[in-house]
Amino acid sequence: MTLSFKVMRADDPFRDRYARGTRSMTASEIRALFAVASRPEVVSLAGGMPFTAALPFDVVGDVLQEVVATEGPAALQYAGGQGDPRLREVLTDLMRHEGIRGSGGDVVVTEGSQQALDLISRMFCDPGDVIVAEGPSYVGALSAFSQYQVDVCHVPLDDDGLDPDALAATLERLERDGRRVKFLYTVPNFHNPAGVTLAAGRRERVLELARRHNVLVLEDNPYGMLGFESDPPDALRALDPDNVVYLGSLSKVFCPGLRIGWALVPPALRERMILVKEAADLCSSSFTQAVAYRWFANYPWRETLKDLREVYRERRDVMLDALAEDVPAGVTWTKPTGGFYVWARLPDHLDARAMLAKAITARVAYVPGGAFYADGQGASSLRLSYCFPPPDRIREGVRRLAGVIDEELELARALGGLPLEPPAPDQSRPAGWGGVQ
Amino acid sequence: MTLSFKVMRADDPFRDRYARGTRSMTASEIRALFAVASRPEVVSLAGGMPFTAALPFDVVGDVLQEVVATEGPAALQYAGGQGDPRLREVLTDLMRHEGIRGSGGDVVVTEGSQQALDLISRMFCDPGDVIVAEGPSYVGALSAFSQYQVDVCHVPLDDDGLDPDALAATLERLERDGRRVKFLYTVPNFHNPAGVTLAAGRRERVLELARRHNVLVLEDNPYGMLGFESDPPDALRALDPDNVVYLGSLSKVFCPGLRIGWALVPPALRERMILVKEAADLCSSSFTQAVAYRWFANYPWRETLKDLREVYRERRDVMLDALAEDVPAGVTWTKPTGGFYVWARLPDHLDARAMLAKAITARVAYVPGGAFYADGQGASSLRLSYCFPPPDRIREGVRRLAGVIDEELELARALGGLPLEPPAPDQSRPAGWGGVQ
Repeated sequence: MTLSFKVMRADDPFRDRYARGTRSMTASEIRALFAVASRPEVVSLAGGMPFTAALPFDVVGDVLQEVVATEGPAALQYAGGQGDPRLREVLTDLMRHEGIRGSGGDVVVTEGSQQALDLISRMFCDPGDVIVAEGPSYVGALSAFSQYQVDVCHVPLDDDGLDPDALAATLERLERDGRRVKFLYTVPNFHNPAGVTLAAGRRERVLELARRHNVLVLEDNPYGMLGFESDPPDALRALDPDNVVYLGSLSKVFCPGLRIGWALVPPALRERMILVKEAADLCSSSFTQAVAYRWFANYPWRETLKDLREVYRERRDVMLDALAEDVPAGVTWTKPTGGFYVWARLPDHLDARAMLAKAITARVAYVPGGAFYADGQGASSLRLSYCFPPPDRIREGVRRLAGVIDEELELARALGGLPLEPPAPDQSRPAGWGGVQ
Repeated sequence: MTLSFKVMRADDPFRDRYARGTRSMTASEIRALFAVASRPEVVSLAGGMPFTAALPFDVVGDVLQEVVATEGPAALQYAGGQGDPRLREVLTDLMRHEGIRGSGGDVVVTEGSQQALDLISRMFCDPGDVIVAEGPSYVGALSAFSQYQVDVCHVPLDDDGLDPDALAATLERLERDGRRVKFLYTVPNFHNPAGVTLAAGRRERVLELARRHNVLVLEDNPYGMLGFESDPPDALRALDPDNVVYLGSLSKVFCPGLRIGWALVPPALRERMILVKEAADLCSSSFTQAVAYRWFANYPWRETLKDLREVYRERRDVMLDALAEDVPAGVTWTKPTGGFYVWARLPDHLDARAMLAKAITARVAYVPGGAFYADGQGASSLRLSYCFPPPDRIREGVRRLAGVIDEELELARALGGLPLEPPAPDQSRPAGWGGVQ
């Protein structure tokens, strides 16, 4: 099975005409994989799809009716480029729960936070610039960044999130080397894919380092409201409003199908952000914005959020229990306190990408760790998501995965004892991930 | 009144960090203007907003209910990056009316056709590349192009659309100069802003010239279904499937607030286009796509389209009659047979941008012609739209405008006889047009 292919083909009549930023794009292995993983007999621990069946459909239907009945033509018309002012106010209310005192006037509504990642990259990045990001990092962010021909420089995570000492060393090295670092990209809460949260005690230091090196912080927080035991610490944006662009999303706490994300930007960036948004797609849907506004203004969204947390907490528990029960010694994993993901490390000599074909044959899928690095790291890691499959399927999926790992370890021993050579770095670029959120 | 301002400010703490492509973005005069033009006492002949009040709201409400009732969780979930396969099939049915035999597999759904303009530019354009475009051209396209630091080279229009002789000369000159022309951008039907349609007899020649010079054609057709007397000639895409990217939009024939556009691309471009779309915003809204699919699959959209054509035809008639009655000699204008716009030319020594402040004082607004050129042309032209205001307001608006032009001509005569110096070229870049579609 071929798990990776270049989009560029020798017989492509346009091959000499593409822009440099998109010329070498590759569809990652994940795209090819997903066609297979979506078969019903495969337990997919790969996708990041929220469990939308947990939403109260009758109530959502009421909201839709209300929008049509009360907003009429306006809800079907073009909206302003910055987004519905009522929605922007409601979003500032949501952010207040994370300690953020922001103004709706500094919010720009986007097509999910993915579009905000694209637009911020476009505003700041020239070819050869550097973005500092956690290693591993959200694959969609790496994909957005790669189109602007930047170099992503990864800083390692541990169980308390981004390592500030490693960040300091990296920023100093890049400064010595004369590199232009445009921003630090971070998912501080319930990290995708690592499942960890940046400890409260590290947050000021991270911000101080960014300020000292004149580096903007891009705080991406789609999972912050999905804490299982408690809310995460105050947002980075709450601690440093002038040097943090905060990205939010309703995709994980309401409906991804409405495509509502937003950026809360320092006032100095607002006008430019609106212009870039308008050049990208004029405006977001007035209809879906009106639905989102009414949901958070007039409906019991807190109860729905509580239900969602409960769904995901149970699934997290099932996955962690199953991992502890079934997975052989030598494999380690993170213990998320919110969000969708567990990050697992195999013994160094195992190659998660090579193992995937066998896993799919055994009817379980995951995302190989290399997808979450821009530089070939992550070969023996993998991301497991517990957000979408029901608990018994998660249990069965982990059981199947454990069997595959067992076989791999067995094979490695049979081939002549440990340790073998570590797997080769994954050099495929992270563009095109086919549905991994 | 200041009608134009740079977004860049001396006290912007980020001023040294922006990307080259967005550093010099300016909010055009139109943005500042629109705040004023939206006052109820001003007749706005400036905006390009469709008259959504003509849509059958009860029926649209039924469609929304149907989506919620029958598609449930899926309509609120992430969609595939390429777009809903059912919608893509329906869009190929629509395109069949324009002679296009395309496959839904080669359609990529976008956030309005504006996003398609952005994505195609991203796929092809490096700094210093050239895009050939009609002069004047759609301001949103110029805005998308400008972010990729391309040079737009305008080719003049006449009443039969793009002038093929001028196109031939331009392409030859650019080739001689060693410039890389990435595509020809054209709105062949009911042009925005010029109101003209590319004659059937010119279409093969335009395509042949593009092929000969190895230049892709980007055919933007949001108004093609809005012909008042007859349908336009077969689409360029129908005549040359391998070298034309066709852009469609539901914003002018259904609801702009759903943000549904699409690109029908040559098969060789499909995979790359999907990757670029996913990097931009993962996917379009599954909900709005389901609404659009059901509307065109199951509802009497042809009747709605007929109603819309009738609304716009009547308004076109009113505007043309009023212009003929009220506007002083020396002003000329186009006679659109579909779409939303009339393009008017003042005597050369009048400056449409300078005149705008006076027009707004006289409670009428338009878009100065300079906004539709990347190179400072268009200073004595202006775009008048008849799509949104009711007929009596159009009549009143033209009357007010005629009064302003009369005064300007009077003033010019008083200042010492004609001709005066022609106005200075408009050097502001066309980024940010604040709601002009």
